Amino acid sequence: MTDATQLTSAIDDVKHMKWWGWGVDGVGFHHHDKPGFAPFVQMAVGLDVNEPAPDPMSFDDVEVPASTASGEFVQQLERIVGEGRVSTARLDRVVHTFGKSLRDLVRVRSGRLERTPDVVVYPADEAEVQGIVDAAADADAVIIPFGGGSNIVGSLEPHAQESRTVISLDLGRLNRVIDIDEESGLARIQAGALGPDLEAQLVARGWTLGHFPDSFTHSTLGGWVATRSSGMQSDKYGDIADIARGLRVVRPGAVLVIRAIPSASTGPNVREMIVGSEGRLGVITEVTVQVHRTPQKRVVLAYLFPNWEAGLAAMHAISESDAAPSITRVSDARETGFSFATGKESKGISGLVTKGLGKYLTARGWDTDKMCLSFIGYEGSDSHVARQQKLVGRIVKKHGGIGVGKGPGVLYDQKKFDTPYLRDFLLDRGAAADVSETAAPWSRLLPLYNEVVASANRAFDEIGIKGWIMAHLSHSYHSGACLYFTFAFVHGENALAQYDVVKGAIQQAFIDAGGTISHHHGVGLEHAPWLAQDISVEGATVMQSLFDAADPNRTFNPGKITAR
Amino acid sequence: MTDATQLTSAIDDVKHMKWWGWGVDGVGFHHHDKPGFAPFVQMAVGLDVNEPAPDPMSFDDVEVPASTASGEFVQQLERIVGEGRVSTARLDRVVHTFGKSLRDLVRVRSGRLERTPDVVVYPADEAEVQGIVDAAADADAVIIPFGGGSNIVGSLEPHAQESRTVISLDLGRLNRVIDIDEESGLARIQAGALGPDLEAQLVARGWTLGHFPDSFTHSTLGGWVATRSSGMQSDKYGDIADIARGLRVVRPGAVLVIRAIPSASTGPNVREMIVGSEGRLGVITEVTVQVHRTPQKRVVLAYLFPNWEAGLAAMHAISESDAAPSITRVSDARETGFSFATGKESKGISGLVTKGLGKYLTARGWDTDKMCLSFIGYEGSDSHVARQQKLVGRIVKKHGGIGVGKGPGVLYDQKKFDTPYLRDFLLDRGAAADVSETAAPWSRLLPLYNEVVASANRAFDEIGIKGWIMAHLSHSYHSGACLYFTFAFVHGENALAQYDVVKGAIQQAFIDAGGTISHHHGVGLEHAPWLAQDISVEGATVMQSLFDAADPNRTFNPGKITAR
Repeated sequence: MTDATQLTSAIDDVKHMKWWGWGVDGVGFHHHDKPGFAPFVQMAVGLDVNEPAPDPMSFDDVEVPASTASGEFVQQLERIVGEGRVSTARLDRVVHTFGKSLRDLVRVRSGRLERTPDVVVYPADEAEVQGIVDAAADADAVIIPFGGGSNIVGSLEPHAQESRTVISLDLGRLNRVIDIDEESGLARIQAGALGPDLEAQLVARGWTLGHFPDSFTHSTLGGWVATRSSGMQSDKYGDIADIARGLRVVRPGAVLVIRAIPSASTGPNVREMIVGSEGRLGVITEVTVQVHRTPQKRVVLAYLFPNWEAGLAAMHAISESDAAPSITRVSDARETGFSFATGKESKGISGLVTKGLGKYLTARGWDTDKMCLSFIGYEGSDSHVARQQKLVGRIVKKHGGIGVGKGPGVLYDQKKFDTPYLRDFLLDRGAAADVSETAAPWSRLLPLYNEVVASANRAFDEIGIKGWIMAHLSHSYHSGACLYFTFAFVHGENALAQYDVVKGAIQQAFIDAGGTISHHHGVGLEHAPWLAQDISVEGATVMQSLFDAADPNRTFNPGKITAR
Repeated sequence: MTDATQLTSAIDDVKHMKWWGWGVDGVGFHHHDKPGFAPFVQMAVGLDVNEPAPDPMSFDDVEVPASTASGEFVQQLERIVGEGRVSTARLDRVVHTFGKSLRDLVRVRSGRLERTPDVVVYPADEAEVQGIVDAAADADAVIIPFGGGSNIVGSLEPHAQESRTVISLDLGRLNRVIDIDEESGLARIQAGALGPDLEAQLVARGWTLGHFPDSFTHSTLGGWVATRSSGMQSDKYGDIADIARGLRVVRPGAVLVIRAIPSASTGPNVREMIVGSEGRLGVITEVTVQVHRTPQKRVVLAYLFPNWEAGLAAMHAISESDAAPSITRVSDARETGFSFATGKESKGISGLVTKGLGKYLTARGWDTDKMCLSFIGYEGSDSHVARQQKLVGRIVKKHGGIGVGKGPGVLYDQKKFDTPYLRDFLLDRGAAADVSETAAPWSRLLPLYNEVVASANRAFDEIGIKGWIMAHLSHSYHSGACLYFTFAFVHGENALAQYDVVKGAIQQAFIDAGGTISHHHGVGLEHAPWLAQDISVEGATVMQSLFDAADPNRTFNPGKITAR
């Protein structure tokens, strides 16, 4: 693929990902130092990754429909945000058309875009956002808020048939930690701040947000709130819905302000209406979040369980115990195999296995093809961490698991944000991969897992391909947990139709087995077909009522979450 | 007051409180064994409680407007729920007109009721609720759901000018724990179950809900959800918004169903719209709640702090620490004095002080008029409780506090649900008392407390009476806490106008000092005038939009929370 950041963009102080894929230019997945990778992919989906990838498309060959924004309207926007802060340039519009779902990547790489935003604006502050919103409302234009662009459920694209002017409102310049109330552990942060930028500003003052989703490096606080994000340490810090206490949301003529109150009994929770609203109720400009003192100690330990059932049962037992770890994660046997295959030869878990652990486990009676890798995180004072480790260690042992030390955990910590790059590597070579996650009560997790794997395999059979699906438990709660699935297959001519069969089978299995259609990625367009099955027809009707009444002119990202 | 349960009621298998006050007939506050009480009340509000109370009003003298329900409509309701399950009797209608706020009690005791429900129905199950809702929607009638009747914000009364037929839908017969998913810690419970009834059904199987609001004995699960209740052990178990995972809500033609999912990313949170909706979005018939194994150990310990500032600082430090108690509570010096005065001579904290603790503390340099009583609760395994006690003990010591053992905690546990009876005792003798609570960030708590006390005292001055206000911190969160105020004064002719001055001053002080207008009692009519100041005009507009669109015919408890 071409090096897109070299191409002309209207502004140079807002970072964007590659127009055709994840992350920054010049960074990508490679497997030179991972000897297990090529055989693994060959085994899993029948792809030879040592074959050279075909030549990428040049950005010059991408067909971008012309902007329909009138010169007058563009000038009006320029009067609000200043010249150079409004762009109708092809690259800006392409970058702002999609997020990074498999569907998005396949379409943008096809070089034919049906509909892009007509204009991209980069306001500097809330007052400028108010100006844009009011101008859009007056002109009957559409506003789609844009954070880091990492969305994977189709929340960012204009409706193909939208005849009105579509504005992509990029919040990238609203990236400051405004204030920290150190007594309360509350920080006011602008919505456009990317994970690393806001965390750096917090850490410099001794604080952490504790919110680390897989997309962390390329997603924003406002985006997390708009999609109900959840981070890897949610067991300790909570989901973003718990973390985000105060909100400022620009709506036509006024700002909706939810003050940072620890808990309130003030009717239906408006804060919880904004969280997850994906731009449909206004533009989130500022979030007051709970922050925590950076912990005295932080450690992620690796464990192995003889099989998936034992791993799940151990996570469940931990959630029922007095122990309070920050991360509870266990991979199924297939994902465990994947982790081994993507490890460097001499490091981490692969190294451990090479170094004779495999023999030890076999001697112990394990079938190493069935074993499951787990990471448990601990944070707090030295004595707190020591006690949690002890409590967890007992539970692991009771479930037949063993501790394998800090090494793999350190590696997990270092590499945890790199996985999305792998998808582009595979897609370059004709293999489609994406994720789907759910949450369900503990009693339903194992049947749900089995049902999802069976459904995906039936879907692979239906389209006549060799597919792969693997999963891990990623977040634990009192009454259940999140299961996070990754699936891949070598696609044919019509990659999206094949993807729809597989993705659809997985989502329907979530519903049928008692899970939700989305634990932390939102609804957008991708999950909307299953919404009424998840929250009931009446639930979806109430939600639609809210959108209809709160945004009667359909100014704000219409058609996302619910069809109308 | 007359013994109302002796009066004719349509049904005998649903418990109701006294028509004129709190709790069950034959139970009331008395001070025969509390020598400190009379002098305390004399000091606080200038009332001599040894004077005999005036004769109560007979129920026969209460003026109840006639029911406007047509005979045909009553018969239609009887066809749905069965004969004997529909009542237009005076007592049923009076009992269902109000909750138990000071405003409610003063009005019902005045014997002149402006508007009562026209008919009270007692459905047996969700199908019957659906029948009633559909019949009401067809007939353009109004439905007000009724649980235990303990509401104190005016959520239960019909609008005085309502010209349509008003149905009070009493959920008292939906009182069963339907099912416990023991693997997930989730219980399906009918919405009309009273606290003691549902807890008994859970405890019999080894589980607890862990939700113990002051109103516990006379409030229902559905009512807790409808008003965003919070219990005394919320530090461990969460507020009802956290506890209630699944919901069934009857709306015209269909049931809105939110399945019990531990966490989901499915757009604006419809569950969080139903929680706190006070009947405005439909009738809650069933709630799936998180339940916990009854703990191995449960203990409430009492502590004393030299002053309020130290007590607050200690609670704050506990919330920042690795300790995880189930209750964190500290009273200001005035409420501490009240606790001493209402204790029996030989028991609890009063006994301790009598037994020389006062001398010890004075010798230690304390001004015992300023000291503050605190209760901290611990639950879990023996070792967990021991560790939490140790961690908390260190923090208490660091803030100059001392532990005073289990005795007062046991007494607190036994007497915690009795306080509401005191209000009737005072009202019988011409003194008005009620409560107002808020939540705010830790940094604002002390200034807020000072501002509220000053505002209340200015209000007392304004109406020219000797008033009393006291408070305790009742629930702690990461970023703040709930302050729970109780106020009292000997009222004049126009008790409600005087009450409005005091209550209004307190509510406005909450807003001005950065707190919310309600932490766990809801909005109803009582707090509605401050809603837009709390969640902003735009926030209130969005909420109103939701009500307008989701209930366009204003079937469900119209005019509560928001004015329209």
